[in-house]
Amino acid sequence: MSLDPIALAERLIACPSVTPADAGAMGVLAHVLEGIGFTVHRFAAGEAPDGPIENLFAMRGHGAPHFAFAGHTDVVPAGEGWSADPFVPAIRGDLLYGRGAVDMKGAIAAFVAAADRVSEHHGTLSLIITGDEEGPATYGTVALIDWMAARGIRPDLCLVGEPTSTHRLGDMVKIGRRGSVNIWIEVPGTQGHVAYPHLADNPVPRLIAALDALAKLHLDDGNDWFQPSNLEITTVDVGNGATNLIPGAARARINIRFNDEHRGVDLIARVEAIVKAHAPTANVRGIVSGESFVTKPGALSTLVADAIRERTGIDPELSTTGGTSDARFLSRLCPVVEFGLPNATMHKLDEAAAVADIEALADIYADIIRAALA
Amino acid sequence: MSLDPIALAERLIACPSVTPADAGAMGVLAHVLEGIGFTVHRFAAGEAPDGPIENLFAMRGHGAPHFAFAGHTDVVPAGEGWSADPFVPAIRGDLLYGRGAVDMKGAIAAFVAAADRVSEHHGTLSLIITGDEEGPATYGTVALIDWMAARGIRPDLCLVGEPTSTHRLGDMVKIGRRGSVNIWIEVPGTQGHVAYPHLADNPVPRLIAALDALAKLHLDDGNDWFQPSNLEITTVDVGNGATNLIPGAARARINIRFNDEHRGVDLIARVEAIVKAHAPTANVRGIVSGESFVTKPGALSTLVADAIRERTGIDPELSTTGGTSDARFLSRLCPVVEFGLPNATMHKLDEAAAVADIEALADIYADIIRAALA
Ligand SMILES: [Zn+2]
Ligand SMILES: [Zn+2]
Repeated sequence: MSLDPIALAERLIACPSVTPADAGAMGVLAHVLEGIGFTVHRFAAGEAPDGPIENLFAMRGHGAPHFAFAGHTDVVPAGEGWSADPFVPAIRGDLLYGRGAVDMKGAIAAFVAAADRVSEHHGTLSLIITGDEEGPATYGTVALIDWMAARGIRPDLCLVGEPTSTHRLGDMVKIGRRGSVNIWIEVPGTQGHVAYPHLADNPVPRLIAALDALAKLHLDDGNDWFQPSNLEITTVDVGNGATNLIPGAARARINIRFNDEHRGVDLIARVEAIVKAHAPTANVRGIVSGESFVTKPGALSTLVADAIRERTGIDPELSTTGGTSDARFLSRLCPVVEFGLPNATMHKLDEAAAVADIEALADIYADIIRAALA
Repeated sequence: MSLDPIALAERLIACPSVTPADAGAMGVLAHVLEGIGFTVHRFAAGEAPDGPIENLFAMRGHGAPHFAFAGHTDVVPAGEGWSADPFVPAIRGDLLYGRGAVDMKGAIAAFVAAADRVSEHHGTLSLIITGDEEGPATYGTVALIDWMAARGIRPDLCLVGEPTSTHRLGDMVKIGRRGSVNIWIEVPGTQGHVAYPHLADNPVPRLIAALDALAKLHLDDGNDWFQPSNLEITTVDVGNGATNLIPGAARARINIRFNDEHRGVDLIARVEAIVKAHAPTANVRGIVSGESFVTKPGALSTLVADAIRERTGIDPELSTTGGTSDARFLSRLCPVVEFGLPNATMHKLDEAAAVADIEALADIYADIIRAALA
């Protein structure tokens, strides 16, 4: 009897693995994978408060090519206002409800079912599963990559099961992601009374001039894989409650989502230069959340798109939109493509995946395994 | 025996008349004024929480010309950290310490002493004294002006006893004040995730562009009586704590201190037009704290300057700098000049006036009365 992806998804949802908790999810997964021929390695990484994190690496077969599936068992907090208990999986109508149904316990279950269906394959099939994707992601996929590297394990192709579909299963595959950098700007001044501006030094006009220049900055026009890079001023704060006071400092923060024509550190330097041209004493500090990356359309994306087209009739868009994911770490190792369930309810109340979508995803994943390890 | 301004100042300081409280100050003043031939009218105006406010109008003599002295018995709160009790007047060294010594119980005492010394004069000498200058000023000088108008009383010349001197008694006389207007700007937008800017509408760049234009606005070059008008951006606030969020609204506030080439309502309209050119959906709201006013140098200022020069040897600067005062209301009735003690410690800890300055001020005020009612 073949492995039912819906039943496995329900067992995983029943574990309230709100990041960084595991709540038994890895144990469920390990047991099922061992039952279908995988060698399972589990290890914990990191310390409180962000850890320890449960990580799992499972492998079946040997030699090249090595095709890996990557995912996470942790979920974002449920939040208040669900129609039913978010950690009691329930099928109502066509939908399987529960936190993680979409992101991404449903996809993990679909891939395990696919691995069960494709019991014969060349090379190596593996699963790289962490419990730390929704949190700081410090002790998750990065630790797994280190663990693999120490053992000489390196995949040749990688599929990440994030929910990339938008309206219908298969309408979007991600072949990369933009990078993201946050930059904090503080302009010092000298506080004083508005009636005596010559005794004060208002930092606001300098910050404003700098921000106006930044808001008008043209970073690029996008390219074949990426939309244009985008800068947003996410906040400006002076916090002066007194109408008769010239403030002593002014702060702002920007975020840049950038494509592969830039690197985060270069953008920080460029922003700092623009800011200092208008506010020479400004303090500018940037943190790169992730560099941009792309797996240019090729063998892997063609293989995935073919499988989707075969099962759904949809020609998937190869996109680089959206937020960051653990694919940014894996892309350093090998070509990476992300493909999973429709994401309309991910991270939302009453998260739910269509039962038919999970079943179709298992079929598509099985076709991908067959093609990758043919 | 002539009335001692120091003793009267001490009696007034001993009343803890923190605005809007009277704490007996008007009673002390009324009693002394009646003793030197004034008819004293007292009335309370307004209701809690800003009132009732004690007001006093005292008059001696009759007919024209009518020379009025205006002032206030209320004081700002003492604050923490005084070397001694702020409401126990104390002479230490050359200085009389106590909340109100400078602003402006010392000047009131000096004027009463001056009125005592000049017992014979033509026309009418009056005192227009309120207990609501440091507060909202709603039920103070405005109510006194209404009270006088209802009785057909209108001064021809007015001297306000605010502490206008800076380094030395007599170095500065105020012949007007700039106006002040506060303008609140709010730009609405649509909140969203920084990774999906097309689904959001960041209001910050529009606010920034508007503020940059405002910061660069040239209002005027000043004139013979006034320094140039000045615009300050006093705060900008978005208050977005999330690095991955495009905010849904952005706010700022500006203050303009303006000379007699402008009116507050016109400035609000002008600012609104500039803001809307950059942010069409912005909400702009202004409140005029006070219009600018000036008593151009002439008979009154010459008379005051002559008296100062005679007693101190100093040629006073005729200025329109600084914050607002009740002179803005009185200037609608007649020429107004402000002259009083050195203001270094006004509204500060350990407020203190030089004993010699209060005595010299009484002499100068007496000369002014003689000249005004010659
Ligand atoms: Zn996810
Ligand atoms: Zn005052």
